Amino acid sequence: MIHDEFEWIKSITPSSSFQKELIVGIGDDAALWSVDEKMEQVVCVDTMVEGVHFTKDTLSPYQIGHKALAVNLSDLGAMGAIPQFFLVSIAIPNEWSEQDLQEVYEGMKDLAKKYRTDLIGGDTVSTKGPLVLTVTIIGKVEKGTHLLRSHAKPDDIVFLTGVTGESAAGLHLLLEKTRHHSFSESEKRLVAQHQMPLPHIEQGRILSKSGFRISLNDVSDGIASELNEIAESSHVTIHIDEDKIPVSPFLEAFSIEERRNCQLYGGEDYVLTGTVSQQDYQALASLFKQQSLSLFVIGKVGEKENASVYLYHTNGRASNPLTKKGFNHFRER
Amino acid sequence: MIHDEFEWIKSITPSSSFQKELIVGIGDDAALWSVDEKMEQVVCVDTMVEGVHFTKDTLSPYQIGHKALAVNLSDLGAMGAIPQFFLVSIAIPNEWSEQDLQEVYEGMKDLAKKYRTDLIGGDTVSTKGPLVLTVTIIGKVEKGTHLLRSHAKPDDIVFLTGVTGESAAGLHLLLEKTRHHSFSESEKRLVAQHQMPLPHIEQGRILSKSGFRISLNDVSDGIASELNEIAESSHVTIHIDEDKIPVSPFLEAFSIEERRNCQLYGGEDYVLTGTVSQQDYQALASLFKQQSLSLFVIGKVGEKENASVYLYHTNGRASNPLTKKGFNHFRER
Repeated sequence: MIHDEFEWIKSITPSSSFQKELIVGIGDDAALWSVDEKMEQVVCVDTMVEGVHFTKDTLSPYQIGHKALAVNLSDLGAMGAIPQFFLVSIAIPNEWSEQDLQEVYEGMKDLAKKYRTDLIGGDTVSTKGPLVLTVTIIGKVEKGTHLLRSHAKPDDIVFLTGVTGESAAGLHLLLEKTRHHSFSESEKRLVAQHQMPLPHIEQGRILSKSGFRISLNDVSDGIASELNEIAESSHVTIHIDEDKIPVSPFLEAFSIEERRNCQLYGGEDYVLTGTVSQQDYQALASLFKQQSLSLFVIGKVGEKENASVYLYHTNGRASNPLTKKGFNHFRER
Repeated sequence: MIHDEFEWIKSITPSSSFQKELIVGIGDDAALWSVDEKMEQVVCVDTMVEGVHFTKDTLSPYQIGHKALAVNLSDLGAMGAIPQFFLVSIAIPNEWSEQDLQEVYEGMKDLAKKYRTDLIGGDTVSTKGPLVLTVTIIGKVEKGTHLLRSHAKPDDIVFLTGVTGESAAGLHLLLEKTRHHSFSESEKRLVAQHQMPLPHIEQGRILSKSGFRISLNDVSDGIASELNEIAESSHVTIHIDEDKIPVSPFLEAFSIEERRNCQLYGGEDYVLTGTVSQQDYQALASLFKQQSLSLFVIGKVGEKENASVYLYHTNGRASNPLTKKGFNHFRER
C-alpha cells in the first residue's frame, strides 16, 4: 500500500488555516512562515511508538492522532507559548488501512482546530515494524518570557493547574479491560483522560503573560518526577502537602494506596505544575479565577540546597524524599 | 537498555553552538530562538526507516546519522535557505547498542558542523521494530525569495548543479556486495555518494541570493521525477538533451542502459535541478564559476501547457515523455 504523503498537507488551504497571515508557503518538502521580532520561536518534538506508548487496545486511531499532538502542545504550554504550526512524520506498518490513517489525521485535525494551529509539513514512510508517529510543534512566546525549571526560590508557593492521576488510572483500566469494554461513567472519564488529554495552553499563557518569576513543568511523568526536576534545576527543596493535592472524585473506586500512587507518580495528565512567589500568588490566582480555571496550592519551596521533594502527611510528619519514579508506559509492566 | 534522551542535546553548550547569538534557551522539552523580521523561517521534516531507506548492509550507524541530516539539509538547499537548527527523534530497537547510537550522533554532529547548524532538541524512545529516525530542520531565507517549482516559463534554461546516478549505482553495489566488501576505487566513490551525500546548500544560496526567477527542486527521486514535478507545477513542457546530461566517469563499468537509468531515474543524489531565464543564465553561471561550483545546462523549457518531460536523443529525435519512475528504495526490488 502506498500512502500519499502530501494528502494531509494538501487538505490545508490558506483560507482554512488559522495562521494564514503568517504562512508564506507550504510546499511538498518545506514550509515558510513570517516572524515577529517581538517574539521568540519555540520548537518541541515528541514521538509515540505503537507497543510502547499505546497499543490497539488502549487508543483508537483517532485518539492516537489527538494524543500525539496533545503531548506536544503540552510542551508548548509549559513554555507559556502560543501554538502556531506542526509537522507530522509517520512510519506506517502495512497492516494499517487508509481508513485508520484518515482517523489518525482527523484526531489531529480536530485538536489542531481547537488550539488554532496549522499542519504545515510532514513525511509519510512505510515500515515493517510498529507505527511510529513524530510530531514537531512550533510556537511563539513574548521575548524575555522564561518559565524555566530553574526559577524556583525558597518560600515560593507550589501550584498545580489540574488534578493528577486520572490518566494513569484510565490506563490501568484500559490495560485490564481494553478500550472495547463497557466502562461505567466514572471509568469512562478516567479512560478519556488517558486517551484524549487536553493540554493546558490557556493556563500556560496566563503564567507567561503575568510577567512573574515562575518555574514550570508539564506533568507528563507524574508530579513527583516533575517537581523533582524543578528542585534539581533550582537547587531547592520542595515540600508538598498530601492533604492539599486535589483528588479526582472519579478515583473513588481505587484503594487509598492506588489513588496516592496515581496522584503522585501517574503520568500523562498534561496539567502544569510549578512555583511562584508568595507575593505574586494572589494576583496569579485572580487571573486564573477570571478565566474560570483551576489553580491548586499544593505546597511550598523550602531551603536552598537540598534538591529533594518531600511529602507531608496528614499527621504532620514528612515522608522520605519522593523519588522521581515516574510513569514509564508499558515497559515496566 | 534505557537511553538518555537528553545526552545528545546536553552535549551542545552555547559556546560550542554555531547559532549562539540566536539561541535563547535549550531545555529538555523545548528550545527557543530569536528571529529576524527580514527573513522567513523554513522548516522541513524527513524520516528514515531501517529496512526501507537503509539496512545494516548499506549504511553504518555513522552514515545513517550523516544521511538523515543530509537529506533534510537538501530540502533547505532547494529553498535557498540558510540552515540554523535541527531536532532529532529516534525510535531505537533493543538490539542497538549505546556505541551504535553514539556513532549515529557523531555522523550528524560532523555534518552539522560543516553546515553550521545546531542540534536544539529531540526525543528518544524505544521500539520493538526497526530503527526510525526523524530529523526536523529549521532554516531561514530572505523575505520574498521563492525558488518554487511553479516558476518555470517557456524558453527557460534547464540546469543541474552536479552529476546524477552515482548514488543509485552505489546502492546497486551495496545491495549486491554489502558495505563490508572491498570495493575498487571507482566503486568506493559511488558507494560514498550513496552513503554520505553532501547537500547543495551553497548552490541553493547562490540561487536564492541571485534574485532571479528560478524554479528549483533537489534531486531526491531522480531528475526525470524532479523535472516532471517542475513541469506539472509550472504547466510547461521540459526538453532535456541526452548528450548534455553530465556522465560520471565512475559509472564507466556499467552498461549504457544501466548508466542511463541511473542518470535519469536514480535518486538520492541531492544535487539541485531547475530552470532560469536565458537572459539571467550567464550571470548565474558566473556566480557559480566564481565559487568553483558546477552548473550544467541540460535542456530548455518548451511550450506552456503540456506538462511533460521529453528526452532528446543524440539522433535528434525526441523520446516518449519521460515518466516520473523515481527511485523507491528497497520496496521495488
